Amino acid sequence: MQLTPQQLEQFDRDGYLFFPGQFTREEIKSLTDEVPRLYAQHRPENVREKHSGAVRTNFAAHLYSEPFARLARHPRMVKPVEQLFGEKLYMHQFKINGKNAFDGDVWQWHQDYGTWLNDDLMPSPRAMNVAIFLDDVDQYNGPLMFIPGSHKLGVLQAGHDTTTTSYPLWTINNENIRTLVEKAGGRNGGIVTPTGPAGSMMLFHSCLVHASGSNLSPWPRVSVYLSLCAVSNHIRRFKRPEWIAHRDFTPIECLPDDCLVRPYPVALPWAQGTPESAAQTSEAPLAEVA
Amino acid sequence: MQLTPQQLEQFDRDGYLFFPGQFTREEIKSLTDEVPRLYAQHRPENVREKHSGAVRTNFAAHLYSEPFARLARHPRMVKPVEQLFGEKLYMHQFKINGKNAFDGDVWQWHQDYGTWLNDDLMPSPRAMNVAIFLDDVDQYNGPLMFIPGSHKLGVLQAGHDTTTTSYPLWTINNENIRTLVEKAGGRNGGIVTPTGPAGSMMLFHSCLVHASGSNLSPWPRVSVYLSLCAVSNHIRRFKRPEWIAHRDFTPIECLPDDCLVRPYPVALPWAQGTPESAAQTSEAPLAEVA
Repeated sequence: MQLTPQQLEQFDRDGYLFFPGQFTREEIKSLTDEVPRLYAQHRPENVREKHSGAVRTNFAAHLYSEPFARLARHPRMVKPVEQLFGEKLYMHQFKINGKNAFDGDVWQWHQDYGTWLNDDLMPSPRAMNVAIFLDDVDQYNGPLMFIPGSHKLGVLQAGHDTTTTSYPLWTINNENIRTLVEKAGGRNGGIVTPTGPAGSMMLFHSCLVHASGSNLSPWPRVSVYLSLCAVSNHIRRFKRPEWIAHRDFTPIECLPDDCLVRPYPVALPWAQGTPESAAQTSEAPLAEVA
Repeated sequence: MQLTPQQLEQFDRDGYLFFPGQFTREEIKSLTDEVPRLYAQHRPENVREKHSGAVRTNFAAHLYSEPFARLARHPRMVKPVEQLFGEKLYMHQFKINGKNAFDGDVWQWHQDYGTWLNDDLMPSPRAMNVAIFLDDVDQYNGPLMFIPGSHKLGVLQAGHDTTTTSYPLWTINNENIRTLVEKAGGRNGGIVTPTGPAGSMMLFHSCLVHASGSNLSPWPRVSVYLSLCAVSNHIRRFKRPEWIAHRDFTPIECLPDDCLVRPYPVALPWAQGTPESAAQTSEAPLAEVA
């Protein structure tokens, strides 16, 4: 799978690309069937909702779950990003985010790269966010909202929000959001919400400003969000636990295109539990690599 | 303005009617220009957001504000409801609800008549909800969501929710919502969000189940919500303050159609402040009227 010149131009302009139905229902089923088993595990990679105790985010499933380990090596996802960055990639972050039916919380407006820069000392935004829908997504189950073109401004000033969401986030102030949305077209396209069936995929720039609203519908919205970082752009500090910001910079080798429906063998290094070293963190930058 | 047989049938089936652009921008401006003055007042009719202190709901403006007093007598709103109920109406509730930009809260799924029955002893659901948009409404600023046809089941079991919203509400449990949405078409029309320009009007049945999500957009969503009750169906208990559940059952007499743009005189009985009696409440039903 190669991106067309038109897609490359669109990504540059808007900061995202949307691929409705990129994976089939059968491919997605291999993932969704696995999710309850992941959520049931008591391990630090499961972050739970403040009120209900339901799992809001599961981290690093690709290190202890076969289907997700295969997804992490899927050419339909990895190849377009390799093409955009012109080099091999490693997995910076891998998470399954559940926005629950009826009580799914909001995520305030933020950029992901802000966090990776501030916390992980990732040198540049040469890391791509990928979202893969495990559920059908429409306007009712709290879809991701983007401000098109907002990636062009680089890292925006942000404050550390530890109150409104269950997970600490560098969020952007309201006046900046207002300006960005106006610039992007105001009520005519200043905010977009790509929606589509389970199996749809989005690539979005790590500086693209995004948010998502409440989910009052009876439909959960579970997605896999992962970040593919250019290998040369690896993080320079291990301030966050390894299941949140990975430390293995080995280039991803893709599996064949049918890897979600055929059982290709994959390594599962955390299958027996999270290594103790993964929880060790440090404020100190890595020693300069020669 | 007369509803057509088709509109009457649609209302019976779906429980709501939507009139995009029912009022002109000029007509709406006479109302929106007045809102800041109302919000600035320190009176019990202003209910403020838990966190920000911003006004979330202003009650009973039609008793102390000229433009809203005229709106309360507008034939484009009153006449269709008189037609539906076949009798004269009084104002049961009149409120301006602001869903703020960036931090507007959710309202959980609920029916209004549940509250009117439980708290106010209103005998039957012969009271109509009317929503008039003071701002443009789209999917991004937390629009009202309806479950079409959900009014057919009468009053659903509900629990008193005093935690998730700033205002106590009888909310419906998740399993009932799931069933209602499925019955209404599931992901194909089981939830609807009428959206349109400022000045649009919705009539919706007092048993219609509705909710609204967060507003993370830079656009506020201020609406006038009012409830027109058939006079014979007036409430039988004054358990809530008068600015929330009115006690004057005098039939509404309409003003001319141009009353929002021409200064017809209106009575403003609460212009000098809220009468003390309005705060007096009682658990006892009214004495039977002969």
